[in-house]
Amino acid sequence: MPDIEPFAIVREKIDQAVRILEEKDVDLWVTYVRETTQVKDPCIALLLGFDLTWQSALLISRTGERVAIVGRFDAENITRTGAYTSVVPYDQSIREPLREHIARLNPRTIGLNFSASDPAADGLTHGMYQNLAQMLDGTGYVDRFISAEAVIGALRGRKSPAEVDLIRAAIGATEDILHEVKAMVKPGMTEREIADFVHQTIVERGLDVAWEYEVCPIVCAGPHGVFGHAMPSHNRTRRGALLQIDFGAKRAGFVADLQRTLYFCHPGEEQPPQEILSAWNATRAAIEAARQTLRPGARGWEVDAAARSTLVESGYPEYMHATGHHIGRNAHDGATVLGPRWERYGTSIDGVVEEGNTFAIELGVFLPEYGYLGCEEDVLVTAAGAEYLSEAQEAIWLIHK
Amino acid sequence: MPDIEPFAIVREKIDQAVRILEEKDVDLWVTYVRETTQVKDPCIALLLGFDLTWQSALLISRTGERVAIVGRFDAENITRTGAYTSVVPYDQSIREPLREHIARLNPRTIGLNFSASDPAADGLTHGMYQNLAQMLDGTGYVDRFISAEAVIGALRGRKSPAEVDLIRAAIGATEDILHEVKAMVKPGMTEREIADFVHQTIVERGLDVAWEYEVCPIVCAGPHGVFGHAMPSHNRTRRGALLQIDFGAKRAGFVADLQRTLYFCHPGEEQPPQEILSAWNATRAAIEAARQTLRPGARGWEVDAAARSTLVESGYPEYMHATGHHIGRNAHDGATVLGPRWERYGTSIDGVVEEGNTFAIELGVFLPEYGYLGCEEDVLVTAAGAEYLSEAQEAIWLIHK
Repeated sequence: MPDIEPFAIVREKIDQAVRILEEKDVDLWVTYVRETTQVKDPCIALLLGFDLTWQSALLISRTGERVAIVGRFDAENITRTGAYTSVVPYDQSIREPLREHIARLNPRTIGLNFSASDPAADGLTHGMYQNLAQMLDGTGYVDRFISAEAVIGALRGRKSPAEVDLIRAAIGATEDILHEVKAMVKPGMTEREIADFVHQTIVERGLDVAWEYEVCPIVCAGPHGVFGHAMPSHNRTRRGALLQIDFGAKRAGFVADLQRTLYFCHPGEEQPPQEILSAWNATRAAIEAARQTLRPGARGWEVDAAARSTLVESGYPEYMHATGHHIGRNAHDGATVLGPRWERYGTSIDGVVEEGNTFAIELGVFLPEYGYLGCEEDVLVTAAGAEYLSEAQEAIWLIHK
Repeated sequence: MPDIEPFAIVREKIDQAVRILEEKDVDLWVTYVRETTQVKDPCIALLLGFDLTWQSALLISRTGERVAIVGRFDAENITRTGAYTSVVPYDQSIREPLREHIARLNPRTIGLNFSASDPAADGLTHGMYQNLAQMLDGTGYVDRFISAEAVIGALRGRKSPAEVDLIRAAIGATEDILHEVKAMVKPGMTEREIADFVHQTIVERGLDVAWEYEVCPIVCAGPHGVFGHAMPSHNRTRRGALLQIDFGAKRAGFVADLQRTLYFCHPGEEQPPQEILSAWNATRAAIEAARQTLRPGARGWEVDAAARSTLVESGYPEYMHATGHHIGRNAHDGATVLGPRWERYGTSIDGVVEEGNTFAIELGVFLPEYGYLGCEEDVLVTAAGAEYLSEAQEAIWLIHK
């Protein structure tokens, strides 16, 4: 598919943000950052797509005004995006232009990027929170600060058709590479060698990895593999054992997140042992239970419970992670988590699934004799329910080599 | 030079951190993060070098203990670093292990990663600050929170010999590419074409860019170029005009940051016009004034004032940015800024220069008829003063094509 002009999506997201401010009854949304090469607020990707240097305030008003108050040397780039109605450059201090524009807009509520539960809505640092409060000291506006998490969650979560197309393209690129791994892999290879093959392919195609390079892909070979987020090791694949790969490519700023499981057959072996087949069927049934529960209006914890109970009732141990998460610009794209009521998920699991959301659903079973067996698929929530964006893995991929 | 085992530097920095806690009289330093692929605390590069997923606490105690309390799936990677005396995995909530270890260490002061003035010491988000306060609610430890900025500034700023070697290697790689640009560039080329050449070379050598891809390099051609942080455009170089490039390569996690200025001679022209030569000499003199003031014990603003007054007293307008900044893992590496007393620099300019610091020093003059003329060099502060790490540009590079 052709790549669209990069700032077209920024303009589209900011238009969407204005509508969401109205819906959530927030007058002004302020993204306040500096030196984003050091600490990057995830909202910068939605609102701009490039870094800012000095204290910078991106003001999106429910009235439709979009004001960027930034250091002089960043002003030109912002003007070129066409996304802001006003670009205000400064030299020595942001204080006066910031106070002036906030006073002019005179918002009853000012949404800021902090959140106890959503990392993607928590890009304001504590030092910058204090700095902003100090800049506005004495104006009365500090008392109007609220969390913008509802605005940000909706904005990140509700993908536009253009965003969904970009996610589809990232998934396609990821599936191509996973199929090539399947064609290439042999018993006796190390996790490291498999990861190196994936990295090489990524570079050749001008793609990037969806998450941190060292653990993208995660490769877990046989019973000695460490599943979760461990770095690929010198542990080897072998006949009669499983291989699990958790991988996503990043393409044009959007990512996929998929897991595939392979089994290395012994000579003459046509099917994996029954123990593996049973665990796979239970895993697939749990993934399907999640997908079928994943419709507009469902709560995150409900979707998780559907999958978790399906697996546990099949006699397998509970997996110690959430069943699903948003995908988009990031492999863990914030907002609603499809997870259990564990403290570390905070209120993210109470979020409501919406049309246009794109999720990864993932779970698996560790079989001490064979290794980790996992499946992860990417889906789009439509009015009618969740549909697979990935070509769902119906059966374990068998390697006869 | 051979690359060293990546976690050797992490272990070295954590040993150094323990000594700095003693020096700064801070009992415990807590780095508290989650989903660092979304928001990455810059201290993660010092303390770990890879991402963490759930709420995670890295506790460095002045007693020498280093405790990592992290989600189960991240534990294995941390154990493999050999940098932590204890790795504590959890499943459902960090609350109990966190309270237990803090109570056991019973610190009088707890340094956290927030700072009004230093972006590199301000990686704790406001939501995570609130979350940490809530986790420790009722223990009395919340009242012992202080900013860890003094600890972080010293730790980032005081480069070990191994770190200096890595910075030297990044500078060497950057200079190689700048020399190739000099050999390749012709009048009539666009800024975009020059940037593309640099990007291609970066990929061919397995390097990365030192800051954001779209503006690394920054290329400013002739009088219509936009200097500062603007993206390379279709603006063209031409005879009788300047070309300025601001570029750094990243190699093995460390960066360079250099500026070079070129002049396209007319046929038969042996030297740039006098107006350019005079501005260049004033620029070089100001850079040298900064370097000579840059010694252990100097304040950031003193170094800035030396360069700024040298340029202004030569009759050129004041540049609207700081004279210098730390370099290291990032092109703007936090801590002391060599800048003027402008509000946007906060207290960063009051910082004291120390032995082992590595700075970029940069400034320039815009000549309306010819374009922007800038120079930036990288230096190491030793007990005897600052020495160039880069091969300082003594004269404008002349292109006869």
